[in-house]
Amino acid sequence: MVEPTGNTLSLKRLGIDTHEEPVVYMRADCHVCRSEGFSAHSRVLITAGARSIVATLNVVRDGFVLPTEAGLSEAAWQLLEAVPGEIATMAHPRPVESLGAVRAKVFGKPFGEQQLTAILQDMAAGRYTDIELSSYLTACAAVGMSLDEVVWQTRGMVDVGARLTWERPVIADKHCVGGLPGNRTTPIVVAIVAAAGVWIPKTSSRAITSPAGTADTMETLAPVNLDLPTMRRVIEREGGCVIWGGAIHLSPVDDLLVRVERALDVDSDAQLVSSVLSKKVAAGATHVVIDLPVGPTAKMRTPQAAYNVARLLERVGDAVGLVVRPILTDGTQPVGRGIGPALEARDLVAVTRGDSGAPADLRARAVLLAGEVLELAGACRVGQGAVEAKAILADGRAWQKLQAICEAQGGMRTPPVSAQRFEVLAPTAGAVVDIDNRRLSRAAKLAGAPADPAAGIDLHVRLGDRVAAGQPLFTLHAESPGEIGYVREYLAAHPGIIAVGVPR
Amino acid sequence: MVEPTGNTLSLKRLGIDTHEEPVVYMRADCHVCRSEGFSAHSRVLITAGARSIVATLNVVRDGFVLPTEAGLSEAAWQLLEAVPGEIATMAHPRPVESLGAVRAKVFGKPFGEQQLTAILQDMAAGRYTDIELSSYLTACAAVGMSLDEVVWQTRGMVDVGARLTWERPVIADKHCVGGLPGNRTTPIVVAIVAAAGVWIPKTSSRAITSPAGTADTMETLAPVNLDLPTMRRVIEREGGCVIWGGAIHLSPVDDLLVRVERALDVDSDAQLVSSVLSKKVAAGATHVVIDLPVGPTAKMRTPQAAYNVARLLERVGDAVGLVVRPILTDGTQPVGRGIGPALEARDLVAVTRGDSGAPADLRARAVLLAGEVLELAGACRVGQGAVEAKAILADGRAWQKLQAICEAQGGMRTPPVSAQRFEVLAPTAGAVVDIDNRRLSRAAKLAGAPADPAAGIDLHVRLGDRVAAGQPLFTLHAESPGEIGYVREYLAAHPGIIAVGVPR
Repeated sequence: MVEPTGNTLSLKRLGIDTHEEPVVYMRADCHVCRSEGFSAHSRVLITAGARSIVATLNVVRDGFVLPTEAGLSEAAWQLLEAVPGEIATMAHPRPVESLGAVRAKVFGKPFGEQQLTAILQDMAAGRYTDIELSSYLTACAAVGMSLDEVVWQTRGMVDVGARLTWERPVIADKHCVGGLPGNRTTPIVVAIVAAAGVWIPKTSSRAITSPAGTADTMETLAPVNLDLPTMRRVIEREGGCVIWGGAIHLSPVDDLLVRVERALDVDSDAQLVSSVLSKKVAAGATHVVIDLPVGPTAKMRTPQAAYNVARLLERVGDAVGLVVRPILTDGTQPVGRGIGPALEARDLVAVTRGDSGAPADLRARAVLLAGEVLELAGACRVGQGAVEAKAILADGRAWQKLQAICEAQGGMRTPPVSAQRFEVLAPTAGAVVDIDNRRLSRAAKLAGAPADPAAGIDLHVRLGDRVAAGQPLFTLHAESPGEIGYVREYLAAHPGIIAVGVPR
Repeated sequence: MVEPTGNTLSLKRLGIDTHEEPVVYMRADCHVCRSEGFSAHSRVLITAGARSIVATLNVVRDGFVLPTEAGLSEAAWQLLEAVPGEIATMAHPRPVESLGAVRAKVFGKPFGEQQLTAILQDMAAGRYTDIELSSYLTACAAVGMSLDEVVWQTRGMVDVGARLTWERPVIADKHCVGGLPGNRTTPIVVAIVAAAGVWIPKTSSRAITSPAGTADTMETLAPVNLDLPTMRRVIEREGGCVIWGGAIHLSPVDDLLVRVERALDVDSDAQLVSSVLSKKVAAGATHVVIDLPVGPTAKMRTPQAAYNVARLLERVGDAVGLVVRPILTDGTQPVGRGIGPALEARDLVAVTRGDSGAPADLRARAVLLAGEVLELAGACRVGQGAVEAKAILADGRAWQKLQAICEAQGGMRTPPVSAQRFEVLAPTAGAVVDIDNRRLSRAAKLAGAPADPAAGIDLHVRLGDRVAAGQPLFTLHAESPGEIGYVREYLAAHPGIIAVGVPR
């Protein structure tokens, strides 16, 4: 090993996942900590060759890091592209100038366009700590953001990431703001729209707090970890795809902010709108339909809340060159029967293939959204979108397209089937009067979704259904009896997730 | 080793200093992470015997933690009072209910008294993450706090910590909001006030971002890490003390909030006032003089800013049962000559002992503040405080008292002397037209203060002094030539920290 000199230490990969915040672990008694006056939570500029990052210091008293070493968390290791044993220089980073604008915002001063650009560039470069990201988000929510600020924030997010371009004037996209279990319309909509000849290069997310993201569900049908050249080939051949967006780095700052927002459980309309639209602009979309499910346990709790978001989506979309059509839909209960990757995939395949037993609500929702996309993209006359979408489903073109897309993405798969099942029964006779979407999602996660793609919940009833005592309300799917036991404990602690009572 | 079963792991001390936020390190492939669905940044309830804490999860891929172990950061280890190898249960913590009020505050809803009480209790119990503490502070600064809210916050801070009581009706205290190098009046004021027969049980802080805290300076003259019974004995014998407050846990939440505030570099009047006054109420004070130095590079940058803080201090003090007298003082340049623990101790000893060469500005500031304390505490007629303070200095009573206090605290010491010195000379002839307090502090820290108590800066000039080219402006003191080199580099990069030019 080379003996470090000056303010240098030898880099060691520690394999600690600090969830995106780069952390460096250095000994309190190392010569760098002593000479630079570093202490816990200091920000450290780490330079190796021509690469450099800023990381937060955790001081190590003894043990797994030598005084000649600097340990790096996974986020720091990957951001720096470090090599084991590489010699790096440690120094005080220059102050992050753009933080001055964040501090001013805290005290009510609006952001200028250049300030927001600088802030987002610094965030993209990893110069903001979690504490600072939290302060930014809180200040924006508390002080509020003007339309201009939301537009600049959206553009700034696009500018710091990759941006796709397509050689067609109209590129369609669709999005759902989420919060509703099931509701896996995306692959159906993509199949219908692409079958109609409209390009729809869809990037989707994996689950963060839900039992399945669209990417998790699609992965049970085909590979989704595609790089950009592969994605392009799929689109050029089939006109549509459903891939995981994480691999192509669209709007990377959005990922940082969403992580802190979820930890805080504070989200504002401004952040929601910038998050959604920055991803769409970066993906090269021109016409976007956005599904906003409204219900007391959905993300949009009231029609007025959904209206406010819808108007902001349209106005910011207009400013950044996107035609946005928000669609306010019913969010009082899950859409489809399955909750969890494989169970949702089963439902969407049934709808697309035109199976007689396919969930009618999922079919209706997909037809509605696909119809809106077709109209917005100019692929049919206004008012004829739903008719056209139904026709494409009915004659098998959508099913052919979905299979072709799966093949183009790397080969169609059969979703896995769970090993363990348990039926949850109605405690009394009556009608289904309420379904708690949030707790239903939690139960599906306890069953193992999305890590176990076959795990989740299969619903047998819908709001208003009459049930007899002992009739199955839903079936738990899991990989092990332990996980079934887990969910049963949770259900015992939270009775009435599907409430049976006197009809309202 | 006992084989853990269920959701249990064996505890391991990792010696990682995460700066107060409790962190637990668990393997991604351990049975607990898999069955509980924990991932990076999850909050984990750790229970060992009857003790439990909530910690933030860092997932470890491999290496220094086994799948049967949970590693703990220093903060987590100490908070849990863990024993090596002890078996602990890992579970999802209950949601922190009080965070709902913080989220509502973000959107403009004022706190109620019970809400603030619950928030501060949860913070004291370690239930808030750094991200959440940042959001609380940012929301309070951005939305603003009413007088009631500041009062409740102050009371809540007191209620979650220890609170001292004294068997005298009048207990004096003094405080400086800081930001000015030197200005080490506290031990002088304590000696004068105690010599006049007024009890002044002073708890002080160590440096956080400055080259010396009062506790660091006092420690070069006597032990300061006293526990509560020892502090009581000193006060009962001598009527005064200057000890480190950290050991007696007054207003512990203030310590948490101050740490995040400094990382953010956002501070609001409301937080400043609650921070200062909660410590005073907890220390059992009844009458408090607060020094607010005003100057462009001091904490109070304008007289109006100082006035606003002064008024809030008085009004909140009134509501929590404290008589507060704010004193707005000159903060355009350091007070005294030394910057750094031992150099400041040398100055305050010279003033208290009545040496002819003692810094006149430090003497004048101490007399002013001690006089105000004496008047406020009713120990002399109004208007006679400064006269009385001067008399107590002049006849040797203050010096006798300082020595007696040092002896009572564990024995008087002689401040250490530095090994390395370097004189910084005036580049040209002229007058001293400006002194940058912040950069001067930074230079003193680079020289090694406060970790090396003898390190720091000794000033030879004051604003307005005429100097010849090559005349010494100040002397650097350090333990090693390397540290001297460090400061010289910093001075070269930032010329004019003491600016010599044409007099204004």
